[in-house]
Amino acid sequence: MMLRFGGADMKFPSIPDKTPFTPLVVMELAEDTNEEAVTWLTSRIKDTQQSGGAELMIDRLTLDDNQDPKKENQNIFIVGASRERLLVGAEDVGLVKEFNDGSMRGFTYANRENFKGFQGDGDNFLSMAECQFIVKHELDTLRARGETHVPGYPKIRLYPGKSVVRRIQSKGILVQIFPLHDKEELKRLSSMWYQNVQLSFQPLDDIRHYFGESLALYFGFLEYFTLAMVPMALIGMPYYLFDWEDYDKYVLFAVFNLVWSTVFLETWKRFSASLAYSWGTLSRKKAFEEPRPGFHGVLGINPVTGRQEPVYSSTKRQLRIYLVSVPFVLLCLYLSLCVMMVYFSAEGLVLGLHDEEPTFWTSLLLYVPSIIYAVVIEIMNRIYRYAAEFLTDWENHRLESSYQNHLTLKVLVFNFLNCFASLFYIAFMMQDMQLLRQSLATLLITSQILNQFVEAFLPFWLQKRRNKRVHRRSGKVSPDQELPFDQQVMLEADMSTYLGTFDDYLELFLLFGYVSLFSCVYPLAALLAVLNNVTEVYSDALKMCRVFKRPFSEPGADIGVWQLAFESMSVIAVVTNCALIGMSPQMKSYFPDSETQLILVVATVEHVFLAFKFILAFVIPDVPRHIQIKLARVEFESMEALKKKKLMEAAAIQNKEQ
Amino acid sequence: MMLRFGGADMKFPSIPDKTPFTPLVVMELAEDTNEEAVTWLTSRIKDTQQSGGAELMIDRLTLDDNQDPKKENQNIFIVGASRERLLVGAEDVGLVKEFNDGSMRGFTYANRENFKGFQGDGDNFLSMAECQFIVKHELDTLRARGETHVPGYPKIRLYPGKSVVRRIQSKGILVQIFPLHDKEELKRLSSMWYQNVQLSFQPLDDIRHYFGESLALYFGFLEYFTLAMVPMALIGMPYYLFDWEDYDKYVLFAVFNLVWSTVFLETWKRFSASLAYSWGTLSRKKAFEEPRPGFHGVLGINPVTGRQEPVYSSTKRQLRIYLVSVPFVLLCLYLSLCVMMVYFSAEGLVLGLHDEEPTFWTSLLLYVPSIIYAVVIEIMNRIYRYAAEFLTDWENHRLESSYQNHLTLKVLVFNFLNCFASLFYIAFMMQDMQLLRQSLATLLITSQILNQFVEAFLPFWLQKRRNKRVHRRSGKVSPDQELPFDQQVMLEADMSTYLGTFDDYLELFLLFGYVSLFSCVYPLAALLAVLNNVTEVYSDALKMCRVFKRPFSEPGADIGVWQLAFESMSVIAVVTNCALIGMSPQMKSYFPDSETQLILVVATVEHVFLAFKFILAFVIPDVPRHIQIKLARVEFESMEALKKKKLMEAAAIQNKEQ
Repeated sequence: MMLRFGGADMKFPSIPDKTPFTPLVVMELAEDTNEEAVTWLTSRIKDTQQSGGAELMIDRLTLDDNQDPKKENQNIFIVGASRERLLVGAEDVGLVKEFNDGSMRGFTYANRENFKGFQGDGDNFLSMAECQFIVKHELDTLRARGETHVPGYPKIRLYPGKSVVRRIQSKGILVQIFPLHDKEELKRLSSMWYQNVQLSFQPLDDIRHYFGESLALYFGFLEYFTLAMVPMALIGMPYYLFDWEDYDKYVLFAVFNLVWSTVFLETWKRFSASLAYSWGTLSRKKAFEEPRPGFHGVLGINPVTGRQEPVYSSTKRQLRIYLVSVPFVLLCLYLSLCVMMVYFSAEGLVLGLHDEEPTFWTSLLLYVPSIIYAVVIEIMNRIYRYAAEFLTDWENHRLESSYQNHLTLKVLVFNFLNCFASLFYIAFMMQDMQLLRQSLATLLITSQILNQFVEAFLPFWLQKRRNKRVHRRSGKVSPDQELPFDQQVMLEADMSTYLGTFDDYLELFLLFGYVSLFSCVYPLAALLAVLNNVTEVYSDALKMCRVFKRPFSEPGADIGVWQLAFESMSVIAVVTNCALIGMSPQMKSYFPDSETQLILVVATVEHVFLAFKFILAFVIPDVPRHIQIKLARVEFESMEALKKKKLMEAAAIQNKEQ
Repeated sequence: MMLRFGGADMKFPSIPDKTPFTPLVVMELAEDTNEEAVTWLTSRIKDTQQSGGAELMIDRLTLDDNQDPKKENQNIFIVGASRERLLVGAEDVGLVKEFNDGSMRGFTYANRENFKGFQGDGDNFLSMAECQFIVKHELDTLRARGETHVPGYPKIRLYPGKSVVRRIQSKGILVQIFPLHDKEELKRLSSMWYQNVQLSFQPLDDIRHYFGESLALYFGFLEYFTLAMVPMALIGMPYYLFDWEDYDKYVLFAVFNLVWSTVFLETWKRFSASLAYSWGTLSRKKAFEEPRPGFHGVLGINPVTGRQEPVYSSTKRQLRIYLVSVPFVLLCLYLSLCVMMVYFSAEGLVLGLHDEEPTFWTSLLLYVPSIIYAVVIEIMNRIYRYAAEFLTDWENHRLESSYQNHLTLKVLVFNFLNCFASLFYIAFMMQDMQLLRQSLATLLITSQILNQFVEAFLPFWLQKRRNKRVHRRSGKVSPDQELPFDQQVMLEADMSTYLGTFDDYLELFLLFGYVSLFSCVYPLAALLAVLNNVTEVYSDALKMCRVFKRPFSEPGADIGVWQLAFESMSVIAVVTNCALIGMSPQMKSYFPDSETQLILVVATVEHVFLAFKFILAFVIPDVPRHIQIKLARVEFESMEALKKKKLMEAAAIQNKEQ
C-alpha cells in the first residue's frame, strides 16, 4: 500500500524487511531509555483501538552504515498509519470537509464517499499535514489502562485515563515528537511563496495545506495588515515629501487613520471568517481539551469527565494569579518606568555636559545613555519573559489555551510599556514632536533590520551550513541532491523547533502601535511599516520552510487573543491622537483665550470618536452574510433530519402500540 | 383521560357530547368567517402529523343559554392535545428538563422515563404554561400543503410550507389566540407573590412555572436591581439627613456607585445564567426561526431552508435602515432638542416677567412652560413610538427578534434623550445643581406615581368592574364564586393583551439612568428608586395576574438587548459623574491656579475608570463556574456516547469485511 499525499508520490524509501508504511511523524526517545519501556510503548501504539491502543504503525529508524552508531541516538522511531485508520481518525479529530453539495460538513467515515475529492480508497483525500495532525492526536489520546507506572520506570506513575505520551514527554523519556517535511511539496510551496519576487497574494490555501490553519491565518493577517496600510502609506507620503507641518492636515490624516484602523480590524474578522469557513475550522466542533503536560495536582475526580485525573483547586489558582502574578507584573511595570526615568535623566545630564564643554568625548558620550537603555530593555524583556513563563507555569493552568492566554497577556502588557513608555514620555511630558519623530524613525528602522536578521537570516545561514555538512558527510556534494531517508530524518531532528506564532504576532502588534499611536505626528510610519511587512513576509516564509522543523498543523478559526490586543491598541490610539492634536500649536491658536475650552473640545471629540468606534464595531457583522447563510443551512438540515428521524420513531412506537 | 397540571386538578367542565380534553388555548376567529374556512382549519388542526396536520384537539365553545347568541361571537374555539402529543411536542420545541442524574438535558420522548418527575404516564411532567407553549408552537408550524389559498377566501393565498395560522392571523381571520388562565394555580401564585406584604424574595420558580421564563427573568431582574440599590440607598441617606454638601463625600459616593453598577450588571449576568440553567433555557437549542407574520416579499427560495417562501433583499433593507430610518431618528432627536431649548427660553422669559412685576398671575404663569413641556414630551413620545413601529415594520425584517431589536433601539435612543436632555442641560449648561436636584426629585416621584397608576391600578379597577358585570349577568353575586367555563373564556377573551416586557424594562432603564447618571449630586435618588421598585413589584404582579390575558410563555436565557442598554448607561454614567465632580466648587478649589490642570486630572481619572470597567467586565466570567462544569459535562458525555457509537460501527464494518 502506498499513501499519496497532495498529489506527489512520497519518495521516502520504506523501511526494509518490515511492512512498509508512509512515515509521517518522528518520535525521539532519550538515548538511555529502558528497553522495557520502549517495547511497552511500541506495543501500546500498535495495539488495536478496541484493546485500548492507538492502532498506528511504528518502527525504529535504521541508521545507515556510514554513520557511527555510537554517536547517533538509536531510539528514533517513525510513526505512520493505515489509510483506514487515518480516515477514522479524521472523524475523531472533528475534521470538517467540503461535501458534495458544496457545503462544509463534519467528516464521517460512514459517509466518506459523499465528500468532495474522495475518490476510490480516499488516497488524496487527506493532506499530509492533516494526517500528521491526526497521528499526533491519536498518540496524545493513547491512555494508560491498568498500568500503575511506566514499565522500567517505577517512579513515573500512571493512572487509568492518563495520556501516556504526555506523561513520558513531561518526564523527559520522549525527547521530541515532530512531523516530517515533504521535500517535493515544500519545493513547490517555496517557489510559489517566496522564491520569486512577484506582485501577487501569498498562496494561503497552499500554506494552510502544508502548515495548517493557525500559521496560514498568521500569514493571511500579515498580508491583510500590509495591504490595509498601503492607503495610509500613500496618504502619508506627501506629508513627508512636501514637509507639511500644517496641523489641519495632520488632523485629517489622524481622523482617516482612526476610522481606517477600526474598519480594517472589523473587516479582517470577516475575511478570516471566510478563510476559516473554507478551511473547515469555523464550524469545527472543539474536542474536549486534555490537561496540558505540565499540569499537576492531587489525584481526584474531574467533575466534567468523571475520570480520575489530577485536580487543582481553581480558588488556589485565582489566589496565585491575583496575589502573586498581578502584583509581580505591576512591580515589573513600575521598575521599567523607573529605568526609563533614569535613562531620561542620564540623557539630560550628558546633554548638559556636552553643552557646557563640547569635546569629541562628550559627543561620543551622547550616545551612551541610549545604548545602555537599549541593552537594559533587551535584558529586562528576556528576564521578564522567563519570569512570566515561570509564573504562568506556577499558576498551574489545566488547559494549554488558558496557559497561553495568561502568558500572552503578561508578556503583552510589559512589552507594550517597554516599547511605548519612552515615546509617551517624549510626546506628553517633554512635548518635543521633533524628538518623537526621530525616535519613531530610529525604532522602526532598527527594529526592522535587527528583527529580520536575528530571526530569519542568521538562523537560515547557520542551518544552511549544517545542511552542507550533512550532505558532505553523506557523500552528496550538491545540496539539491536528495539525502537518504535516515539522514533526512536526522537532519530534521537537528533543526530548531518553531515555538508558535506568538513572537511573530507580537512584532506586528508593536508595529501597529508605532503606526497608529503617533500617526498624526509621523505619517511616514505607515510607509516604513509597509516596507517592513513586505520583507517580513519573505523572511518569515524562509524561516518556516528552511530553518525550522515542520510544526504540527493547528486548527484555528481566528487569530484569538490578538484580535483583542489589536482592538485595544486602536482604542488607545484614539486617545493618544486626540491628545497629540490638542497639544499642537495650530489647535492652540484656534483658542487663543482659553486653554480650558480647547481641552473640553478635544475631550468631546475623543468621546465621540470612541463611541463611533464601538458603534461601528457593533454594526459590522463579524461573519459575512453568505457564510452565515451557509452555516445556518447545514444546521437547519441536520435539525430537519433529526426531526424526520424522530417522527419515524414515534410512528414506529404508535404502530407497535396499536 | 384527565390531564393534571401542577398538581391541581383542572376543574373546567369538559365539553359535553364530545371527547373530553383539557382546554389549553383559545382561538377566536372573526365572527363572519366563512364556514368552509372553519371546517378546513379544524380538520387541518385535527389531522395526524404524518398527514401534515397538527394532531391537536379542537372544539367550538358552546355558549350557555343565558347569553344572547346573536350578541356573542360564535367562532371561539378551544384547543387541547393528548398527553402523548404534548410529550412529543415537548421534544419538538426543544424543552430542556432535569435528568435523573441532576443534569439538564434536552427532553426526548423515547427517553422520557429517565427524566426527573416523570411518573406513570407523565401526568404532572409538563406545566400548563409549557403545554400551552407547545400547542402554540404546533399551531404556528402547521403548514400549507397543496392549498393555493384559504378555502372560502380565494384572495388569501397560500403556498406549500407557509404557516397557516400566521397567514390567517395577518389577514384578520384569526382575531386572537391566547392561553387560558388556571384559576386555582393563579390563586396560589397570587397569595405567595403579592397578596401578603412580606419580607421575602419573589417566588421566581412559580412565576416561571405559570408565566414562562422571559417574564420570570423580568421579575428576577427587577428584584435583583432593587436589592442592588439598597446599599446605595443606605449610603445615600446620611447625605440627605445631615445635608452634607461636602464634595469630597460626593466623590466617594460616586466612586462607590460606579464600581457598584459595574459589579451589579456583571453579577446579574451570572445570576440570570444560574436561573436560566435551572429552568433549562441556558442550554436550549434555538429552533429555526420562522418569518414574522408581517414579513412580505416576492416568492422565492429561502437560501437556508431551500423552501419556497417570500424573500426580501437584505441590501434593500440596509438601504431603508441607513437612508431613511437613521436620518429620521436623528431628525427626531434634533427636534426634541429644539423643543427643549424652546422650553428653557420660555421658562427664562416667564421668570423674567415674574421678577419684573410679581403678581398672582405671573406666579401661576411660572408653571405653564413646565406643564406644556411635559405634555409635549408625552405627545412626542407617543407619536414617535408609532413612527418607530411603522418604520421598523417598513424595514421588513424577516425575523421577529431582529424586528424587536431594531424597534427597541429606536425607542430607547429617543426616550433617553427626551428624559435626560433637560437634565443634562441643567447640569452642564446652566450648572445649577440645586435645580438639577429639584428636577430629579420631581421626575422620580411623579413618574413613579403616574406610571403605577396608569399602568396597573387604573386597569385593575376597570377590569374589576368588568368582572363584576359578568358575574352579575351570570347570576353569581360574589366575585369569588366560579364562573361557568364558557363565561370564564369570554371574560378572558375580553381582557387586555399584555404586549411584552418592553415597557416594563424601559421604565427600569430610565430609573437606572436617574440613579446612576447624576448620583453624585443627588444621592437620595437610589432610595426613591428602591421605594419605586418595591411598589413596582406589587403593581406589576397585580397587572399580570388580574388585568391581562395570560401571555404565552416565552423561553428566554437572558434579558437580551437590555443587558447592553444597561451597560451602555453605566458607561455614560462614568462620563457624567466625572464631569459633575470636575465642575464642583470643592474640586475647583484644589486647583486654584489652573483650570486646565483640573480638567486634565478629571479626564485622566475618567479614562482610568472606563478602562477599569472594561477590565472588570472582561475578568468576571459571565457564567458561574459550577454551571460551566455542568454544561461541559453534558457536552462531554454526548461526545463520548457518539465516539462509542462510532467505534462500534467501525468494528461492525471491519467484522463484515473480514
